[in-house]
Amino acid sequence: MTTELSPDAPAGLVERARQDYQELAGRGLSLNLTRGKPAPEQLDLATDLLSLPGGRHTSADGTDVRNYGGLQGLPELREIFAGLLQVPAGQLLAAGNSSLELMHDCLVHALLGVLPGAASRWADQERIAFLCPVPGYDRHFALCERFGIEMIPVPMTDEGPDMETVERLVAEDSAIKGIWCVPKYSNPTGVSYSDATVARLAAMPTAAPDFRIFWDNAYAAHHLTDEPVEIADLLVACAEAGHPDRAFIFGSTSKITAAGAGVAFFGSSPANVTWLLGHNAKRSIGPDKVNQLRHVMFLRDADGVRAHMERQRALLRPKFEAVGRILQKELGGTGLATWTTPRGGYFVTLEVPDGCAKEVVRKAAEAGIVLTPAGATHPYGDDPRDAVIRIAPSYPGLAELEQAIEGLAVCVRLVGYERRAA
Amino acid sequence: MTTELSPDAPAGLVERARQDYQELAGRGLSLNLTRGKPAPEQLDLATDLLSLPGGRHTSADGTDVRNYGGLQGLPELREIFAGLLQVPAGQLLAAGNSSLELMHDCLVHALLGVLPGAASRWADQERIAFLCPVPGYDRHFALCERFGIEMIPVPMTDEGPDMETVERLVAEDSAIKGIWCVPKYSNPTGVSYSDATVARLAAMPTAAPDFRIFWDNAYAAHHLTDEPVEIADLLVACAEAGHPDRAFIFGSTSKITAAGAGVAFFGSSPANVTWLLGHNAKRSIGPDKVNQLRHVMFLRDADGVRAHMERQRALLRPKFEAVGRILQKELGGTGLATWTTPRGGYFVTLEVPDGCAKEVVRKAAEAGIVLTPAGATHPYGDDPRDAVIRIAPSYPGLAELEQAIEGLAVCVRLVGYERRAA
Repeated sequence: MTTELSPDAPAGLVERARQDYQELAGRGLSLNLTRGKPAPEQLDLATDLLSLPGGRHTSADGTDVRNYGGLQGLPELREIFAGLLQVPAGQLLAAGNSSLELMHDCLVHALLGVLPGAASRWADQERIAFLCPVPGYDRHFALCERFGIEMIPVPMTDEGPDMETVERLVAEDSAIKGIWCVPKYSNPTGVSYSDATVARLAAMPTAAPDFRIFWDNAYAAHHLTDEPVEIADLLVACAEAGHPDRAFIFGSTSKITAAGAGVAFFGSSPANVTWLLGHNAKRSIGPDKVNQLRHVMFLRDADGVRAHMERQRALLRPKFEAVGRILQKELGGTGLATWTTPRGGYFVTLEVPDGCAKEVVRKAAEAGIVLTPAGATHPYGDDPRDAVIRIAPSYPGLAELEQAIEGLAVCVRLVGYERRAA
Repeated sequence: MTTELSPDAPAGLVERARQDYQELAGRGLSLNLTRGKPAPEQLDLATDLLSLPGGRHTSADGTDVRNYGGLQGLPELREIFAGLLQVPAGQLLAAGNSSLELMHDCLVHALLGVLPGAASRWADQERIAFLCPVPGYDRHFALCERFGIEMIPVPMTDEGPDMETVERLVAEDSAIKGIWCVPKYSNPTGVSYSDATVARLAAMPTAAPDFRIFWDNAYAAHHLTDEPVEIADLLVACAEAGHPDRAFIFGSTSKITAAGAGVAFFGSSPANVTWLLGHNAKRSIGPDKVNQLRHVMFLRDADGVRAHMERQRALLRPKFEAVGRILQKELGGTGLATWTTPRGGYFVTLEVPDGCAKEVVRKAAEAGIVLTPAGATHPYGDDPRDAVIRIAPSYPGLAELEQAIEGLAVCVRLVGYERRAA
């Protein structure tokens, strides 16, 4: 996706870009493209959830969901999501309101406890490192940074992380304990992992006996096209490759029902599930089963989830189409940018000429268009090429979004043409 | 509360106890007095919660509670609980569904981060110890055990932990980083801390600069009498004594609205709140604000909480009265037992002759009456006198409870008289 500057930019392009930017800055916009938040209309799709469970307070097996207990979460909710997350219901945990919390807690328990297959607690080891496919999700990187886990960037390809690099690194360095993956409609590139990538991740020899794939399947059901992407089953692949404990699978309904009031899931091998349940048993007397029952009653079954996601898609697709259409109209043929056309998920990745991303984001902010900080897609906030900008089209209304993308395109032209002319 | 065995127990008492036990064992009971769970009728008091927030999805300041964000929790919910928990609303966090989780996470962040006032992470220190007033709450002790934190028992008095012992230990041992306290209607003794105890805890010099009081105010509103106990304000006392960062205050609605589907709270000094929020910001994109709004609409204000707790009291008080009445009738004057008459909270502590608690619990289990394991009230499950039994009267129906306590009394007579006769 590299974009090369052509050496001979006509001065007229710079001049027009400056005029356009001045006009943009004068409009007093206040638009936000930073986070992958659902729009209010998306949340309205789950309005019925707000009155549930109503008169009911028992789960299918008669458990009173209003009382303590049930550490693994309601079986009927786990059944609904087992297929979608590619984890047998018996190996799935339905937990609290955030999958990020589950990832955080898995790191904590690996640091302060002993993972199945580990020789010791990670906290007792001199150096712990994680592979970070880039561009990636800033909150994954923030967890590593917070715990002093070294981050090693690995480039993304159209099929997932560059597996030759991954295989070489994990084979030689026993301090590398994990890799962050968003396997479907990846944040922010939209890439879905190919079957070959999944197979290689499952099978590759690792120097660390306690290596884990943090498989953040955040967009498992979040399709934007008529042809949903299916990824290979990592848990099965790991088991078949003789590495049954390698995969930690995460998911949530945050972008299905409500963001912050949904249910998060963890799935893994029986040994890992027992390990996490053991730690959770010390931390909690059980998840919010009322909210889990609420979700069971609202979603009903896997088909219910699919039908609900169709309604989400009807709201999201026009926004993603608008982003592509405007970027093409304003930047197509300029040589100043490339961008992704994701088949699902929540983001568009815009690449601008090397050294320009920070300046584009700064200019946009000055014109009232707030973008995710350039660099956020890379460990330590450092995009070495300073080229990647993450666009989150979901939250603004369509008209606002169009304004914001048009404005962003002006900023790209301004910074790009000025750089080219310099 | 020590109970001495008299040397001359008539053989008739042993014989009668054996007959009573045989009769008890033949009844095929299946009763459970183990955990402090609310009864279904108590949970029914919050039935309206199950249909809330209904048509509403914005908090007082217009925030859409269905979306991400709002790490500190809804201000209006914090206002409701500020007085009850003796923490200014601005220094209170409304979090997830479990205060135990917050205690766990505070330990994790102190182990893997650096507390205000600390020289280093606890994980980097050779030895970390906590004072554990005994008898106490087994889940507190389980957290220490899980993290390898040494537990030092301190005897409870009628005014809280024996402060002379506490003051001496914390002054001389810099590895002692904390103390577990259930300051009101303590688990399991029912003791409430006197003003003098609170003042001494706040003022005492500690060798550790990062000493923390884990103030688990689980029963702040859980009165059983017409004269609610008020405890002194620890946060103010600590600030006035020049130790503003000493107190971590925890509470929840688990035994107010729903156990597992309530809201938990953390309160402390501004520096500690900033510290925890900083760590929480890495872990989560915010708590379940829909559940918080639900609680605001249901409880309304502090008076609403008080009125609700009056209804709880009407259900709980007869159970506690039955326990006292039956123990008095069956064991009064035998010299075999003493017990507490708590003014609030969830437990009665029964003390039997030294060396008898485990055997009483075993005999009760054989007769179908499950009690909290003897020793659970002490660190490492080890009650050195083997004398304390925790009774949790809340969950069973009144008739079942009466059966269970009558049966328990038979077991105490059996074990006590046999021991005396031996």
